[in-house]
Amino acid sequence: MPTKVERLLINFRTLEEFKKFKAYGIQELSMLEDLENNMVENNSESPFYGIYYGDELVARMSLYRADAKYDYYFEPKQDYLQLWKLEVLNSFRNRGFGKQLVDFAKSFNLPIKTNARINSHGFWEKQGFQPATYEMERDFGENPFIWLPEGVQEKSED
Amino acid sequence: MPTKVERLLINFRTLEEFKKFKAYGIQELSMLEDLENNMVENNSESPFYGIYYGDELVARMSLYRADAKYDYYFEPKQDYLQLWKLEVLNSFRNRGFGKQLVDFAKSFNLPIKTNARINSHGFWEKQGFQPATYEMERDFGENPFIWLPEGVQEKSED
Repeated sequence: MPTKVERLLINFRTLEEFKKFKAYGIQELSMLEDLENNMVENNSESPFYGIYYGDELVARMSLYRADAKYDYYFEPKQDYLQLWKLEVLNSFRNRGFGKQLVDFAKSFNLPIKTNARINSHGFWEKQGFQPATYEMERDFGENPFIWLPEGVQEKSED
Repeated sequence: MPTKVERLLINFRTLEEFKKFKAYGIQELSMLEDLENNMVENNSESPFYGIYYGDELVARMSLYRADAKYDYYFEPKQDYLQLWKLEVLNSFRNRGFGKQLVDFAKSFNLPIKTNARINSHGFWEKQGFQPATYEMERDFGENPFIWLPEGVQEKSED
């Protein structure tokens, strides 16, 4: 079955699907609360993109375009994509859904920064990401991995 | 056996002990590389604090005092502590070591911010932490939990 990456709208169905993912946290709880209190409209745009397999959301990620003024990773300093909560449901792993989401993110041709979960370093390297040089006051508990489109470098250390 | 929280020095022994912890990542690899290349001195100070039980490091956390100008969580705006990589080795859980580390962090009487791992929300609430109001462009994939000493509040939303 061919699958496609689609932008997920904020509604009760999406939020119900989100409960199946491990990284369900304060972000999701806050979206649910905002929806229940009519602080966001049903079917508003979300930062989440996902892949449906039939009726079921089987993979998702969040993407956000950060402004160049917050760029502490790349050279030249520029807009870049924050990617987080990339996750494929257990029984749908090893079918290329993770790669499909990452390729979608790369298609914007902006540098990408993510925080790799422990034990996922191999996955990110296979997708062409590299570990960023760790800087404590920037990264704290993160494992920053970056992807560089042509013509972009990691910024050199201060 | 009474235990105490101590500041961990960067040396090969500490880094060997760190390998037992799940959250061993780019930060630890970078410390190891710096030590091997003599870019940091043996026994330099680290941001890590830990508890030894006999000869074995059984719990650790990182603490860093962030300057007030980077404070986007508290009111009044002030220096605060970033706490990350709090972890107790599996076979030493439920003996109060996690609480002992958190109490140590609280003893500075500064507000504290941490990124709670999924399934650890109950632990943080038991330690008197509360979930911060989620703000996407600040928190991305984090589950920010904060602790407020007397006289400090969560900053109100912009």
